Amino acid sequence: MQIILLSGGSGTRLWPLSNDARSKQFLRILDNKEATGRESMVQRVMRQLRSSGIEADITVATSDSQKDSVIAQLGDSVDIVTEPSRRDTFPAICLACEYLSKQRNCKPDEIVVVMPCDPYTETEYFHVIKRMADGISENAADLIVMGIEPTYPSAKYGYVVPENGNCVDGIIPVHNFTEKPDVQTAGHLISEGALWNGGVFAFSLGYLTEIAAKYVDAPTFDEIRNRYKEFPKISFDYEVAEKEKNAGMVRYHGKWKDLGTWNTLTDELPTTEFGNVITDGSGENTHVFNELGIPLLCLGTKDLVIAASPDGIIVSEKSKSENVKTYAQQLKNRPMYEERRWGTYKVIDSITFPDGFCALTKQLTLNPGCSISYQRHEYRDEVWTFIDGEGEIIIDDQRRSIQRGETVTIPKGCKHALKAYTSLTFIEVQSGSNLVEEDIERFPLDW
Amino acid sequence: MQIILLSGGSGTRLWPLSNDARSKQFLRILDNKEATGRESMVQRVMRQLRSSGIEADITVATSDSQKDSVIAQLGDSVDIVTEPSRRDTFPAICLACEYLSKQRNCKPDEIVVVMPCDPYTETEYFHVIKRMADGISENAADLIVMGIEPTYPSAKYGYVVPENGNCVDGIIPVHNFTEKPDVQTAGHLISEGALWNGGVFAFSLGYLTEIAAKYVDAPTFDEIRNRYKEFPKISFDYEVAEKEKNAGMVRYHGKWKDLGTWNTLTDELPTTEFGNVITDGSGENTHVFNELGIPLLCLGTKDLVIAASPDGIIVSEKSKSENVKTYAQQLKNRPMYEERRWGTYKVIDSITFPDGFCALTKQLTLNPGCSISYQRHEYRDEVWTFIDGEGEIIIDDQRRSIQRGETVTIPKGCKHALKAYTSLTFIEVQSGSNLVEEDIERFPLDW
Repeated sequence: MQIILLSGGSGTRLWPLSNDARSKQFLRILDNKEATGRESMVQRVMRQLRSSGIEADITVATSDSQKDSVIAQLGDSVDIVTEPSRRDTFPAICLACEYLSKQRNCKPDEIVVVMPCDPYTETEYFHVIKRMADGISENAADLIVMGIEPTYPSAKYGYVVPENGNCVDGIIPVHNFTEKPDVQTAGHLISEGALWNGGVFAFSLGYLTEIAAKYVDAPTFDEIRNRYKEFPKISFDYEVAEKEKNAGMVRYHGKWKDLGTWNTLTDELPTTEFGNVITDGSGENTHVFNELGIPLLCLGTKDLVIAASPDGIIVSEKSKSENVKTYAQQLKNRPMYEERRWGTYKVIDSITFPDGFCALTKQLTLNPGCSISYQRHEYRDEVWTFIDGEGEIIIDDQRRSIQRGETVTIPKGCKHALKAYTSLTFIEVQSGSNLVEEDIERFPLDW
Repeated sequence: MQIILLSGGSGTRLWPLSNDARSKQFLRILDNKEATGRESMVQRVMRQLRSSGIEADITVATSDSQKDSVIAQLGDSVDIVTEPSRRDTFPAICLACEYLSKQRNCKPDEIVVVMPCDPYTETEYFHVIKRMADGISENAADLIVMGIEPTYPSAKYGYVVPENGNCVDGIIPVHNFTEKPDVQTAGHLISEGALWNGGVFAFSLGYLTEIAAKYVDAPTFDEIRNRYKEFPKISFDYEVAEKEKNAGMVRYHGKWKDLGTWNTLTDELPTTEFGNVITDGSGENTHVFNELGIPLLCLGTKDLVIAASPDGIIVSEKSKSENVKTYAQQLKNRPMYEERRWGTYKVIDSITFPDGFCALTKQLTLNPGCSISYQRHEYRDEVWTFIDGEGEIIIDDQRRSIQRGETVTIPKGCKHALKAYTSLTFIEVQSGSNLVEEDIERFPLDW
């Protein structure tokens, strides 16, 4: 059995804690009762999967910008397939299935479950997934979807309308799918027994690769990935589910929450204060997140969400916090904080002069044993001042050890790489006429 | 005529915009209708003095920590006398008067007006000051105080109780002074015609130097300053005003506000948003100040004061904002932003490792023509990366020009100085076992 975990989404609804590189599913703010410390949504779903007894390989389908976050949070225990460009769920699932088929040599009768990484759910959710997979191996249907008991007539979700009658072993035949109806239609659908479409699908690998081959038919995974743009930009629901005549559904009764907004998220948090926060005790119903290195003081705050990160600060009345999306898109900027495969960085200062020259100052930490690739920039100088740890640096093919107290200047055009022996922290000052992540040329290197 | 402007106070009540180096009177947030741009309280009172027609030299009595702010905001047009240590208003006024007498050779019959730098007032206030000074030169009294029409029985102010009867040329004889009574007594005093003590006093220079000599009697100003601790730690009101039998008062009728709390300050501000602030337009009665380089988004905020600076962030219900003082004292830290005589700096990052080693990163700007003294540190290395402008640097007696794109490392024990030709901006990374402002040894230098 193969599980494809969809990790996508942009980082606007929980701005400024989330950004393009750190979508909501990577925020380490949920309580992990089984361990000490906090976990993110993606870590929670992985932990739940592992402890559910489901035996499956896990492949995360994600974007290039989120790949490092996935590695940093899930380690080597998962495979990762990245889309060359953002399209929609149908192409993303095709790509992951082709990876399983052509790269991992999975058989056409291998059972695949596709699931989102962000709903906040309970153990029963994973029992339902197991039932769905079993349904496919028993040939109960060609495609099985998870149906969520609706709690209100939402226009945000898709609906699954069951066929009347014959439910066998928990598999209910599907009459049809209805994507995001208006509220009135939603109410009508619910009264007729429709459930929310939970975005969890089970099918056999061959089922999907056959559909994928209608758009891109090629012998190797690399070729399919190179021709990714030939897949239509469409959701799995429209392209596959709605067209399927032999679809089934398994009901899920337990908790199912999209923690994608400040309001829904704060309902599930273990405490009301995260980071360096001081309150006077007279506040009510206020959640405060502070990721900055300076204190945040709250006096008498009521019904607020307050969040501060290197990307920005929000102070929002809870009922208005959904509107952050509108504004966060305007505020879109380079991510000021990122969790990378090699460690973390945060932007601590950014300044642009009237003539267009820019300077960007970062604090970076490389995890022990990790390294930054051998690279060269065309438009910027960098200055690294090492303030903690020990490591090794390569500058224009010259290798030497490096430690706290040393400063290295890296002019434009100079090749450089860095490896940490111990946790290695340094301040980087970038300066130049064009400071973009894309100004990078990489070279092969064996440490 | 001599004016002594008292500029003291700590920076806790408007935290985080104010700090030890930048008291409330230096915040550039008031509207200056006579010019473009914003002005601070101390700039406002100076502008009002200049345009009132009062012909006087001005001496600012302040602390060492505020001296650079005074120079940065008022320039060379004022004299500055700094207390060697913080005591109270009586010693501070004595020191300033001794400066006028012994350093500036003012005569004993020179008229002196002492005034605070922070009340928010109107033109009439300065007419009253003129009347007070004239009253001294006419020998109407030995000490003349400004009386403010009380608006409520406050326990925060001192009261001036007038003698019944004979007011000559606006000078009312004073019966007695009562410092900070309880609210009930305050109400009683007001019903009997008492006024608030505005902290503005007029007297002849000889009057005060005679009182000062009772504590410190020395031939030179330097000697008096060196013996500053021999002055009692007491207010001018207790030590001088309350003991004076021949005191007079002039009434002031106009606006007189202490803008020392968030509530009183925000009432007088020209706009509700300062800095990079975005709002959704649904907020009410909210003032937002953002001095950080990142955006601050407000959605549906109501009755709040929000302020963010390199020192910290406050989100406070307006009615609770007076409590900031209690917390700001706990949060006391090194100032993260300062306006110095040579320019400005802000701390952009601060990190302490488990072994006690620290790193502090600053963005600094030297104003054109300004310089940083020739200095040496015992416990810290510094790395300067120049990102804008041109200047000259001296490293261990070696002088050379410096410009954008250059990096200079300054190990512990290395002497260094810097001068700006044009506005010169650089990133400084300090690192070492002990990062305190006191780790500095200065050397003489002629540019």
